[in-house]
Amino acid sequence: MAQDYSFQHFNVHFPADSPYVAHVEINRAKKMNAFFEAMWLELGQIFARLSEDPAVRAIVLTGAGEKAFTAGLDVQAASEGSILSSGTEGDPARKATHIRRHVAEFQNCISSVEKCEKPVIVAMHGFSFGLAIDISVAADVRLCSRDVKFAVKEVDIGLAADIGTLSRLPKVVGNFGWVKDVALTARIFGAEEALRVGFVSGVYDSKQETVSAALKMASLIASKSPVAVQGTKEILNYSRDHTVQDGLRYTGVWNSAALQTNDVSSALLSGIQKRTPTFEKL
Amino acid sequence: MAQDYSFQHFNVHFPADSPYVAHVEINRAKKMNAFFEAMWLELGQIFARLSEDPAVRAIVLTGAGEKAFTAGLDVQAASEGSILSSGTEGDPARKATHIRRHVAEFQNCISSVEKCEKPVIVAMHGFSFGLAIDISVAADVRLCSRDVKFAVKEVDIGLAADIGTLSRLPKVVGNFGWVKDVALTARIFGAEEALRVGFVSGVYDSKQETVSAALKMASLIASKSPVAVQGTKEILNYSRDHTVQDGLRYTGVWNSAALQTNDVSSALLSGIQKRTPTFEKL
Amino acid sequence: MAQDYSFQHFNVHFPADSPYVAHVEINRAKKMNAFFEAMWLELGQIFARLSEDPAVRAIVLTGAGEKAFTAGLDVQAASEGSILSSGTEGDPARKATHIRRHVAEFQNCISSVEKCEKPVIVAMHGFSFGLAIDISVAADVRLCSRDVKFAVKEVDIGLAADIGTLSRLPKVVGNFGWVKDVALTARIFGAEEALRVGFVSGVYDSKQETVSAALKMASLIASKSPVAVQGTKEILNYSRDHTVQDGLRYTGVWNSAALQTNDVSSALLSGIQKRTPTFEKL
Amino acid sequence: MAQDYSFQHFNVHFPADSPYVAHVEINRAKKMNAFFEAMWLELGQIFARLSEDPAVRAIVLTGAGEKAFTAGLDVQAASEGSILSSGTEGDPARKATHIRRHVAEFQNCISSVEKCEKPVIVAMHGFSFGLAIDISVAADVRLCSRDVKFAVKEVDIGLAADIGTLSRLPKVVGNFGWVKDVALTARIFGAEEALRVGFVSGVYDSKQETVSAALKMASLIASKSPVAVQGTKEILNYSRDHTVQDGLRYTGVWNSAALQTNDVSSALLSGIQKRTPTFEKL
Amino acid sequence: MAQDYSFQHFNVHFPADSPYVAHVEINRAKKMNAFFEAMWLELGQIFARLSEDPAVRAIVLTGAGEKAFTAGLDVQAASEGSILSSGTEGDPARKATHIRRHVAEFQNCISSVEKCEKPVIVAMHGFSFGLAIDISVAADVRLCSRDVKFAVKEVDIGLAADIGTLSRLPKVVGNFGWVKDVALTARIFGAEEALRVGFVSGVYDSKQETVSAALKMASLIASKSPVAVQGTKEILNYSRDHTVQDGLRYTGVWNSAALQTNDVSSALLSGIQKRTPTFEKL
Amino acid sequence: MAQDYSFQHFNVHFPADSPYVAHVEINRAKKMNAFFEAMWLELGQIFARLSEDPAVRAIVLTGAGEKAFTAGLDVQAASEGSILSSGTEGDPARKATHIRRHVAEFQNCISSVEKCEKPVIVAMHGFSFGLAIDISVAADVRLCSRDVKFAVKEVDIGLAADIGTLSRLPKVVGNFGWVKDVALTARIFGAEEALRVGFVSGVYDSKQETVSAALKMASLIASKSPVAVQGTKEILNYSRDHTVQDGLRYTGVWNSAALQTNDVSSALLSGIQKRTPTFEKL
Repeated sequence: MAQDYSFQHFNVHFPADSPYVAHVEINRAKKMNAFFEAMWLELGQIFARLSEDPAVRAIVLTGAGEKAFTAGLDVQAASEGSILSSGTEGDPARKATHIRRHVAEFQNCISSVEKCEKPVIVAMHGFSFGLAIDISVAADVRLCSRDVKFAVKEVDIGLAADIGTLSRLPKVVGNFGWVKDVALTARIFGAEEALRVGFVSGVYDSKQETVSAALKMASLIASKSPVAVQGTKEILNYSRDHTVQDGLRYTGVWNSAALQTNDVSSALLSGIQKRTPTFEKL
Repeated sequence: MAQDYSFQHFNVHFPADSPYVAHVEINRAKKMNAFFEAMWLELGQIFARLSEDPAVRAIVLTGAGEKAFTAGLDVQAASEGSILSSGTEGDPARKATHIRRHVAEFQNCISSVEKCEKPVIVAMHGFSFGLAIDISVAADVRLCSRDVKFAVKEVDIGLAADIGTLSRLPKVVGNFGWVKDVALTARIFGAEEALRVGFVSGVYDSKQETVSAALKMASLIASKSPVAVQGTKEILNYSRDHTVQDGLRYTGVWNSAALQTNDVSSALLSGIQKRTPTFEKL
Repeated sequence: MAQDYSFQHFNVHFPADSPYVAHVEINRAKKMNAFFEAMWLELGQIFARLSEDPAVRAIVLTGAGEKAFTAGLDVQAASEGSILSSGTEGDPARKATHIRRHVAEFQNCISSVEKCEKPVIVAMHGFSFGLAIDISVAADVRLCSRDVKFAVKEVDIGLAADIGTLSRLPKVVGNFGWVKDVALTARIFGAEEALRVGFVSGVYDSKQETVSAALKMASLIASKSPVAVQGTKEILNYSRDHTVQDGLRYTGVWNSAALQTNDVSSALLSGIQKRTPTFEKL
Repeated sequence: MAQDYSFQHFNVHFPADSPYVAHVEINRAKKMNAFFEAMWLELGQIFARLSEDPAVRAIVLTGAGEKAFTAGLDVQAASEGSILSSGTEGDPARKATHIRRHVAEFQNCISSVEKCEKPVIVAMHGFSFGLAIDISVAADVRLCSRDVKFAVKEVDIGLAADIGTLSRLPKVVGNFGWVKDVALTARIFGAEEALRVGFVSGVYDSKQETVSAALKMASLIASKSPVAVQGTKEILNYSRDHTVQDGLRYTGVWNSAALQTNDVSSALLSGIQKRTPTFEKL
Repeated sequence: MAQDYSFQHFNVHFPADSPYVAHVEINRAKKMNAFFEAMWLELGQIFARLSEDPAVRAIVLTGAGEKAFTAGLDVQAASEGSILSSGTEGDPARKATHIRRHVAEFQNCISSVEKCEKPVIVAMHGFSFGLAIDISVAADVRLCSRDVKFAVKEVDIGLAADIGTLSRLPKVVGNFGWVKDVALTARIFGAEEALRVGFVSGVYDSKQETVSAALKMASLIASKSPVAVQGTKEILNYSRDHTVQDGLRYTGVWNSAALQTNDVSSALLSGIQKRTPTFEKL
Repeated sequence: MAQDYSFQHFNVHFPADSPYVAHVEINRAKKMNAFFEAMWLELGQIFARLSEDPAVRAIVLTGAGEKAFTAGLDVQAASEGSILSSGTEGDPARKATHIRRHVAEFQNCISSVEKCEKPVIVAMHGFSFGLAIDISVAADVRLCSRDVKFAVKEVDIGLAADIGTLSRLPKVVGNFGWVKDVALTARIFGAEEALRVGFVSGVYDSKQETVSAALKMASLIASKSPVAVQGTKEILNYSRDHTVQDGLRYTGVWNSAALQTNDVSSALLSGIQKRTPTFEKL
C-alpha cells in the first residue's frame, strides 16, 4: 500500500511535522531547474500518484537550489527535440500533427497539477520564467519570495505560450490588461507587482520563509476534512469554467454523496468539545 | 396593489427619505442572525416579491443587532433537520436524492437575491460567516464595517460550501488563488483584506455608517431610470456567464425593446433643463 | 501594396521612430471627440485594414485635443438619428427589429478593435465617458493620464450600455461589485481608482506622457515576433470565453502551424548572438 | 404523507393495476382542453408534487374527451389577459418587462414537466396544436393516435412560439429542416409524418390504444429501480445540453452516490433467482 | 428605397405571383455553377441585402441550367488563387495566417445565408458537391430533385471541408454515423438517402418541380407575419447552439418586444373574419 | 518503429488486402466477450497506440465468436471488484470518491475510441448489451448483422449507464424520445429499429458480411488522404459539442496548417491523371 516516490528529477518527501503533506521539489538545481521532456513526464506521474494517495491531503511544490524555481524550458534540449526542431519529416500538415500531439502530451503533464484532487501550493523564488508560470497557474495557491523574477517569456522565443499560461492566467488574475501586457511584452515582473495583481497570495523575505509559509498553509489544509477540502477544490475549478447555474447544479450532485460523510459529525463534535478532529483517510 | 411585507424573521421597511428603496433586515439578533430553514424560505419569498414590486428600485440587506450580519447556518437546527441528520431513511443513493432536492431548494432561495431584478446592496458587520458569504455573492455590491469577520467556514464543519459561494465567488473576485486560500483554510479575514481583493467595495467605521452608505448608494441608483438600471443588472449577470459574442447578441435583443422607453427622452430633457428626471414605475 | 490611411474623422500616422507601430487618433477635438454614426463606421474600417496590414504590428489609439479622449456618443446627433429617435415607423416589434440591426452594426464597428489581429493600446485622458469605456475594453491594454474622468454614463440617459461595456468590463476587471457599482450609479471615477481595480495598467502625469508610454509599449511589442504576438492575443481572447480544457485544445491546434515559423530560430539565434532579431512581415 | 391530488382543471389518478404510475388528464374537454393561465399554473404544481412523491415512478399525460389532447392556448382568454392585451400601461420598454416576466412564469410551468424527476409519457390524440407541442417536447416520450393533428401554430397568430417548442424541438428531433418547415409554415402534420421524423415513438389506432400503450410503458419503467430510472432521465437531459466531456464528468459525480444503492444487489439477485425485484421508495 | 439587385454571377428576381419572395439563381451554368472567389463575395452581398430588405420575406436559392446546383469549388480557379496555391510567401506559420484569414472570409460569405433574417429554401438538382453542401446546410430548408447527386467531396481533394459542412451538418441531421460516413468516404449519395436521413425535406421529379415546390413553400411563409417568421428563424438557430435554459431565456427577451406587434391582432382578427391578413413591412 | 500489438484479451491484425487498416477483435468468445477491468484497460492502450501509429488509417472493431459482439459488463467479475462491491471501506462520501475515480478511469478507456485520431467502424452481431452501446457510440460508424440484439441494459441492474451511452447516444441519434425509451425500459431492440433511428448505418445478413462491409468501408477511408480524414473526424467531433460559430473558428485554425499538405496536389493531380493517389504516412 505504501507507494514508492523515488524519482529521477524530483524529490518527494513527507515532512515529519506536517502529517498528510507531501513536498515535491524540482531537482535540477545545476541547470536552474530547467525542464526537458523526461521531467514533465515524471511531473505528470508524480501528481497522478499523489492525487489518489490516501496518505496525502495537501502538496507543496518548490524548486531546488537558490537560483530558480525553474528557468522554464531547457531551450537547448528542446531545440534538439521534436517540437522546435526543423528535422521532423513530412509536409507542414504532417509536422502540424506531430506538434499537436506533442503539445497535447506536454499540456496533460502540466494539467496533472490541476487535476490532482489535493490542493497544491507553489512556493517560487529566483528565476521563474515560462514554464514556471504554466505550472503555477495550474496549482491552487501561489506564494513567492521577494527576489523572484517572473516572466511569461514565450514571445521572446517566437512562440505563443502553449502549455497553459494563456488559457489559465486570465482566469487566475482579474486584470485582463495586465495579462495582455506581460504576455505580449515578455517583460520581467517582481514580487510586489505579482502580489498587487493577485498572481501570488503572499510575498516572503527568502526562499526558506516562502517554503515554510507554504508548508504551514498545507498543514492547515491537511488538518481539515479531506472530503470537504477535495470537494471544495473540485467545485471551484468546475465553477470557474461554467455558468453559475451549472455550478450550483454540479455542486448539488457532488454534495449529495459528500454530505453523507462521517466527517461532518466529527467536525461538529470536535468543535463542541474544543478538540482537534481526526478524519478517515481519502 | 400595495404589497404586504410583514415577515416573521425579517423586517422590511421603506425609509421615508429614500424613495423607491427597500431595506431588508435579518431579524434574529439574539442568535447572531443564524439561519434555519424557515428563514431562507422567507428570504426567497421576500426577494421574489421585491423583484416585481414597482414601488421598489433598489434594495439594501443588513443584519439586526451589533454582533453579526449572520453567523451562518444555525448548525444546531441544521443537525436536527434533514441535510445533516443521519436519520434519513434509505440507502446512500436514496439519501443522496433527498439531499440533492434539499440543496436545490436552499440554493433557489439564496439565488432569489441574484434573480431579483432590482440591485441589491449588502451591508455587513460583525460575524459574517458561511451563509453570509453565499448570500453576499448573490448580491450586486458588498460593503462592510471595519469590525467585520468574514469566513468561508464550511470546510471546518466537514463540507464543501454548496449554497453558492463556490460557484459565485470565483466570478466576483478576480484572484483565484485568494479564493482557493480562504475556501480551503476557512480562515477568518477582515475588512482590509476584503477590500484589497475586491470582495467588498467599501469599508466604513461602524455598522451604522455602513448601512448609511448602502442606503445612499441605493438612493442614488433608485433615482435613475428603472429601465436602464434593471437592464444593466440583467446584462451584467448574463455576460458574466457567457462569451462576449453571446453577451453582445443578448444585449442587442434586450435593448431592442428597452430603448423604446420614454425614460431616454425624460433623461435627456432633464439633463438639458438641469432638473431631476422622474420615471414611470416598473 | 501600400495602403491608404486617409480618413475623415481619424488621423492615422506611422511614427518614424517606432517601426511597425500605427497611431490612430480620434480627430474631432472641437466636440470633445464625441462620436456619431459616420465615425464608428470609419473606426471599423480602419481597424479591419490595420488588422491585415503586414506593415503594422501594434497600434496606439488616442483622442485629439486636450479635453477628452472621447466624451462618448454625440447625444444630439444620436437623437436625430435612428436609434433614439421616436420617428421610426411601425409597431414596437418592428421598431425593435430596426434597433436590433442598428445596435448590431454599431457593436460590430467597436468589436473591430478586439478582432484586430494586432495588439491595441488605448491612451486615455480628460473626459472618457460612455463609448470611451466600450472602445477601451475592446482594446488590449488601457493607459491613462492623471486628469482622466471615466464614467459608464449610459444609465444617466436612460439606457443600458449596449456597445460592449456590459459584456466586456466584467471580464476585463476582476471585481464584479465594482463593475456593478460604476455601471449602476454612472458615477465618475478617476485614474487612481481605475488603476486600483485594474481597469488601467498605468497612470501618467499628462496626456503627452500617457501617449509616449503607449507608443513605447507598442514599440516593444512590435519588436517581437509577429507570429508569437498575434497568436498570444488570439489565444488570450479565446481563452477568456472558453473552458480551460477548450483553451488548451485550441492552443494546440493554433500552435501546430505557428511553431513552424522561422521566427523561433531567429529569436533563439539572436538571443545567443546578443543582437536584435528581425522577423518577416505578417 | 399521502398527498392530495385534487385539482380544478386536471384529473390525477393512480391506476390500480399499474403500481407507481400516475395518470394526469387535462380536464377541459368542452373547450378542447385549451389552456388559460390558471391551468398552466396548476400543471406546474402537479408536476412539482409528482416529482418528489415517493409513491410515483412514472407519469402518463393525456387530454380528456375525444376531440383534442389540447387545442393550445385559449386565445380568447389570452387576449383578455396580460400577454396579448394592449391594455398594459407604460411605454414599450415597460410593457416588455411585464411580458418578459409573464413569459418566464409561463415557461417555468411547462418546464416543470421536464424538471419532474420521474419520466413523463405523453399520449396525444385529435387536435394537438401550439401549447400541445410545447408541453410534449418537455416530456420524455411522445405517443399518438392515428387521428392526431399536430401544428406549431404560433406563427399563424403572429408570434414566435415562446413556451419551449423553439428551444426544445431542435433537440428532440434530428431533422433541423423539418423543424424549420413546420415552425415557419404552421402547417398541420399527422401521425405518420410525426413518426417518420421521430417526433413520436409510436402510433396507435385510437385514443384508447394510445393511452393503454403509454400506461404499459409507464408500468414497465415503474417496475425498474427508481434510482436507476431517475438518474437516467437526469443524465440524458443534462447531456443534451452539454459537451460529451462535461456529460461524462457529471455522470461520474452522480453515480458516485447512486451506485451505493441497494437496488443494484436487489436487481442482480432477482435476475439470478428469476423473480421480480422490489425496490425501496424514492 | 428600391434596391438594386443586378449582380454579375447571380440572377435575383421577384416572381410576380409570389409577393415578398426573392428568387436567387447561381448563374454560371456553363461551368456547372462552380464557385470562384468573386462569386462567394457576391453571394455574401446578396444575402446581406435581402436580409434587411422590407420587400422580402422568404428566399429561394437555385442553380441555373440542367446539370448542377453547383459542382462546388472551381478547383482550377482555386488552385491559381491563394488558398491552395503554394505560391504564398513566408514560412508555414505566415502561410497559416493567410490561409486562416482567407478561410474566415470565405466562411463569412456562406454564413450570410444563415445570418439572413428571412428564411432561405434551397432547391437542388444534378451535381451538388462540396460547396453545395456547405451552402445548403446554412439555409433553412433543403429540397431536391430525384436526379440529384450529393457528395461531401472535400476529402477527395485532400482536405477537411472548412466552409461550414463539418460544423453544421451534425446539427442539421440527427444521424452522426451517417455524417461521419459521407464526410469520411466522400461517396456520392442520392435523393432517397438524403430524404431518409433528413438532409432534405422533399424530393421532386424534376428540377422544375423542385423549384416550384420551393417557391410555393416560400410564398406560404411570406404570407405569414414577418415579425413571427423572422423571430422563429432567429430563435431556432439560437437554440440549436445553446442549452434549453438559455434558449428559453433568450426567447423571453426576444418576444418581450415582438409580442407588441400589431400583427398579433391582425392575425387573430383575420382568423375570426376568415380573410387573409396583411402585415406591415419589416 | 514497428509496434507490438500482442494483447491478452484482444486480437489486433492487419488484413493483407486492406493496407493501412487495423482490425481489433474482442477475444473472449467463451464468455460472450463480456468485459472485466483488465480488458477495458487493454482496450484503452490499444486505441491510444493505434491513434498515433502512422501505419494505420482506419480501424474496424469486432467481437470474436458467433454469439455476441459483447454481452457487456461481466457482472460476476464486477460484483467482486470495486465498483459494485459493498466491501469498500469508509463512509458514503469516501466510497463516492473511490467510485468516482473508478468510473473516470473506466470512461477514459472507452473514450480512447473517440479520441483515436483514426476513424473507427464497429461491426456488431449477436448480443450487444450495455457496454456494447457505450463502446459503439464512441466509435464513428456502426454496422450490424440482422441477428443483433441491442439493449441499454443498465437500468435492469439498478444503475444509470455511466460509461458514455447517456452522454453520447443523444448526440449520435436525432430522436430523443427513442433514446429515452430504450434507456429507461432497457428493452431489447433489433437491427431494423436500429437502422430506422440511425443508430446503425447498415444491416447485413451475417456476422461475416457485416465484418466484410466494415473492412471495405475502412479500406475506402484508408485510401484517402490521412490529413483530410483525420481532420474531418476531429472537426466533426469538435463541432458536435460547440456552437456553429466556434466550430467554424476551430476549423479555420485547424486547416491553416492542414491545407499546407502535399496531399492536396497529390489528390488533384491523381484526379486529373485518373490514377490512385498515394499519400505520405501520418
